Amino acid sequence: MSNVAVLHSYFRSSCSWRVRIALNYKQVQYTQKSVHLLNNGGEQHSDEYKSVNPMEQVPTLVIDGLTLTQSLPIMEYLEESRPDIHPLLPGDPKDRVRVRQIAEIINSGIQPVQNLSVLQAVGPERKMKWGHDAIHKGFVAIEDLLKAHSTGKYCIGDNVTIADICLVPQVYNASRFKVDMALFPTIARINSALEELPEFKKAHFTVQPDTPEELKKS
Amino acid sequence: MSNVAVLHSYFRSSCSWRVRIALNYKQVQYTQKSVHLLNNGGEQHSDEYKSVNPMEQVPTLVIDGLTLTQSLPIMEYLEESRPDIHPLLPGDPKDRVRVRQIAEIINSGIQPVQNLSVLQAVGPERKMKWGHDAIHKGFVAIEDLLKAHSTGKYCIGDNVTIADICLVPQVYNASRFKVDMALFPTIARINSALEELPEFKKAHFTVQPDTPEELKKS
Repeated sequence: MSNVAVLHSYFRSSCSWRVRIALNYKQVQYTQKSVHLLNNGGEQHSDEYKSVNPMEQVPTLVIDGLTLTQSLPIMEYLEESRPDIHPLLPGDPKDRVRVRQIAEIINSGIQPVQNLSVLQAVGPERKMKWGHDAIHKGFVAIEDLLKAHSTGKYCIGDNVTIADICLVPQVYNASRFKVDMALFPTIARINSALEELPEFKKAHFTVQPDTPEELKKS
Repeated sequence: MSNVAVLHSYFRSSCSWRVRIALNYKQVQYTQKSVHLLNNGGEQHSDEYKSVNPMEQVPTLVIDGLTLTQSLPIMEYLEESRPDIHPLLPGDPKDRVRVRQIAEIINSGIQPVQNLSVLQAVGPERKMKWGHDAIHKGFVAIEDLLKAHSTGKYCIGDNVTIADICLVPQVYNASRFKVDMALFPTIARINSALEELPEFKKAHFTVQPDTPEELKKS
């Protein structure tokens, strides 16, 4: 097995973006194999990619001889297989559940509901409002949790966790759906702090190998 | 704090059903407080319930002085706070990631896409096919994973895990959307074995305090 992991990903996919940040924190060397979600009718639907990921979604991570899908299980695996390099979960179960709760509000509560296939089904006239409302509602829940439990620099405490990793790509999606971030000052504050970190900068959708030239940050 | 946990739940909600099974395995005493998802315009939207769960979803579990939402983080918390009572995850990270992967395909890949709010947006003529297709696609992915990795009685090995707990309510939903289970023989076999277990029987939607009389199993 190769020592370099392979991430099948798309530059703007928020779930691919999460895994890139986690790989950076865990100091895993990886290359990306682009799966363009729009070109050629969506390369995720190709027979070749379906054999890797039958859900026809990105990301898929090939690492340690395993082919893994689903961003949260991938991050839990990186945490458990590399526990000594920048822990992505706190130690106390009562803090760990808060991290996972925020991550899961984004992962299952927001992201699938404002995903491409649902937006297409909802239709072109309604899709902006639909996406906006899904994100707004989830952010109300997260802002509440953060106000109750966040006393540090990031979502839970002063260390970057899986919750933070899910937050940043979701805040970018919020801007695409014109969610008013002034309503979510705690999320906005934490997001700004996270965006300054090198592990987040390196994972940003504007600097990936498959980022189109017009979106590339110089 | 009370020693008896309180589960805000709805008899037929698959996420409530998951948590009931997990509580049974972890031998946690709990009472249920019904949140009817259809009556009174949906009791999950009431101001009283929103103050407990701003996502306006069930379940919410009040336990150990914590108010917890999101079924997978709740199960991970039960596992970490009660590790000695029937472990719901295997020990090896390479097995744990398979358990979480199956659980997450259901939790974020299938369930939110065939959830009430999305079905309402998709519209009455298309909703049966939409729900069917979402479950069918997820089950193709799970059947593949099980064929590759399941060598025991249940999803991963011979012990009931979080993957199994997610599977049974989803198979019930599949029947409502007329998914052809003959296409998924491994899922069907495991589901049948699981349905015989007392912890699953006690959690079934037909025997809950808020199950309507006409659906109650005698």
